[in-house]
Amino acid sequence: MSDLVARFRKLWDEIAPIGRDAGSGGYLRYALTEPELRLRAWFRDQAAARDLPVTEDGNGNLFAWWGDPEAGDAVLTGSHFDSVPHGGAYDGPLGIVSAFLAVDALREAGVAPARPLAVGAFVEEEGARFGVPCLGSRLLTGALPAERAALLRDADGVSFAEALGHPPAGARPELLGRFRSFVELHVEQGRALADTAAPVAVASAIWPHGRWRFDFTGEGNHAGTTRMGDRRDPMLTYAFTVLAANKEARLRGAHATVGRVSVAPNATNAIPSRVTGWLDARAAEPETLSGLVEAVRDKAVERARRDGTEVTLTEESATPLVAFDGGLADRLARLLAAPVLPTGAGHDAGVLAGHLPTAMLFVRNPTGISHSPAESATDADCAAGVAALARVLEELTCR
Amino acid sequence: MSDLVARFRKLWDEIAPIGRDAGSGGYLRYALTEPELRLRAWFRDQAAARDLPVTEDGNGNLFAWWGDPEAGDAVLTGSHFDSVPHGGAYDGPLGIVSAFLAVDALREAGVAPARPLAVGAFVEEEGARFGVPCLGSRLLTGALPAERAALLRDADGVSFAEALGHPPAGARPELLGRFRSFVELHVEQGRALADTAAPVAVASAIWPHGRWRFDFTGEGNHAGTTRMGDRRDPMLTYAFTVLAANKEARLRGAHATVGRVSVAPNATNAIPSRVTGWLDARAAEPETLSGLVEAVRDKAVERARRDGTEVTLTEESATPLVAFDGGLADRLARLLAAPVLPTGAGHDAGVLAGHLPTAMLFVRNPTGISHSPAESATDADCAAGVAALARVLEELTCR
Repeated sequence: MSDLVARFRKLWDEIAPIGRDAGSGGYLRYALTEPELRLRAWFRDQAAARDLPVTEDGNGNLFAWWGDPEAGDAVLTGSHFDSVPHGGAYDGPLGIVSAFLAVDALREAGVAPARPLAVGAFVEEEGARFGVPCLGSRLLTGALPAERAALLRDADGVSFAEALGHPPAGARPELLGRFRSFVELHVEQGRALADTAAPVAVASAIWPHGRWRFDFTGEGNHAGTTRMGDRRDPMLTYAFTVLAANKEARLRGAHATVGRVSVAPNATNAIPSRVTGWLDARAAEPETLSGLVEAVRDKAVERARRDGTEVTLTEESATPLVAFDGGLADRLARLLAAPVLPTGAGHDAGVLAGHLPTAMLFVRNPTGISHSPAESATDADCAAGVAALARVLEELTCR
Repeated sequence: MSDLVARFRKLWDEIAPIGRDAGSGGYLRYALTEPELRLRAWFRDQAAARDLPVTEDGNGNLFAWWGDPEAGDAVLTGSHFDSVPHGGAYDGPLGIVSAFLAVDALREAGVAPARPLAVGAFVEEEGARFGVPCLGSRLLTGALPAERAALLRDADGVSFAEALGHPPAGARPELLGRFRSFVELHVEQGRALADTAAPVAVASAIWPHGRWRFDFTGEGNHAGTTRMGDRRDPMLTYAFTVLAANKEARLRGAHATVGRVSVAPNATNAIPSRVTGWLDARAAEPETLSGLVEAVRDKAVERARRDGTEVTLTEESATPLVAFDGGLADRLARLLAAPVLPTGAGHDAGVLAGHLPTAMLFVRNPTGISHSPAESATDADCAAGVAALARVLEELTCR
């Protein structure tokens, strides 16, 4: 095991400097930009060093094959290289590095898989460049039409097709049909494991979640001269709604966040005419989520009446509950003697789960912080993740 | 009087289209840009039509003289042409249009002033282009050094000196010494007169006011996966502080506004790491204002402790109480049988009040809205303002 820790550190150090921002210490690894292209080249080098031929699916997703790529009945593992702005080191790359190390471990143990094994690197999982998370897996599965994806543009106006070098291929049912299951290893993005003895957990489900836009409108006016009683200030309604979302989520054991706001005219000496806030809400059950959003809306409407403002609520996105294959999760949890946890975050595994038996493994994160330079995992826990993934891949390719 | 209403409307219509945004209906009359330069040309035309020679003070402030500009002991009236972004029609221009119409009224009544009368148009009162409000009056009085003003730049990088065509002259004590008093007529920016029978009021004071920046810092994290109990979310502390500022201001009969906010990273699926809010606070007495700001700070600090966040408070600007000349205000209020009111807004009159006896007249604003296209005054009230200003100027130039 201490050997595995050293191997993990050695491979990890190869990619650690790539795309790292010297200021924040976080990563700027946007899909198909220079740092991510370097990571993709590194992926091909690692595959070549292991005699794993690499295929590309026409959508930007890479697959390194141990066994015949055409044979079918293959087991897929892997994750993504791209990061959010100033993201952490682990979210994504940990699943790819661990997959290559798991292949090494299986080979050294003399395991001869009865089925092909593929290590995948999905493109644009975070949606940080083109705005659509899980873009690569959505294209592969057909959840997003190729024509729409081709036209997505980054902040500089570059389209996804231009960044890719060609129009995306879109749905690849014959490729998808060659996989019998998918396992994604990922750093934990909360602290559920932090206070336990378990370095690795198995995912049960991805919470249903969504994004709702609250538009609060009032009356723009002079901050100095308008009497308090004459105001219709939408910032007050916004502020009350932020606190209400927090309270209602806590009451329900759900998650609610208002992390984005836009104000017009956003001037120090002007009562705003409009404030827009975005609510990110997630819960274990769909009815808890809908109850939470309704409660926040009711509180906002009630407060708007007091403030003389108006509020409208728009659902911008809603993702239903993704229940991972229960049989597969139970099998892996027994195999690893690992706890089973739900997660609030979306992943390529959530997209693929609609098409083939899919599982996720989480590696303990002592701070629980993610999407931030403070995201972390110990080398020992990462090595435990590699060992767990190797056992899982042996189980799935051999039994 | 109905004649005066028609005259007001005629002159008002000459400038009404200048700098009006067809979309919002508000005005984009930034200092020394094309629309404001057209208004300045209009000012020279109006002065020429009345045989009033125009001088410029080297800082961008214009003066049209009825009587000898060199004689001294002159009475100054006027205001400014420039607007805030999408501002109203009346804030500024009403004081200049009314001044020309008052000159006409005095001449028709055969009034022969014993002292010179000057109609002034101050530059950059709103600070919307170069960031410093009352720039023209601050330069004239020496409150702002010419060297600093010269280097102020607009959003396109154009300096004030470049916009003016030459470096500003700065303090002009010999010119300032030629004025015995200043009267600025201005649209009311609140609703204190709206429910009264008085179309015109006299100002008693400008409330002390200031701008404080609250920096709330927490821990950036994933909105989906971070448990509510593990969060340090500065948006919560911000929201609580917004509501506290509103409540504390109401309790004290003061004004508090949080109209500007900045969030990092401002992403829907991220708990913010930092939220900055700007508090604009104003009150009738300095001790009420300082008590208000301290109370808001205490509430913010208390809530930050609960949220696991940190808050720092920085005073960005503070303007002390400006008490207009009490004898002059009483004299004008008696003359006009007008109510006396304080105001929460800064004006060139507030800057000049430190150098010569200064007064302000307010014209009723039925909506109370200002710095917005909805700013308004009836033609009848504007005509009443002209008549009041004429009486005041006769009093001050003749008695």
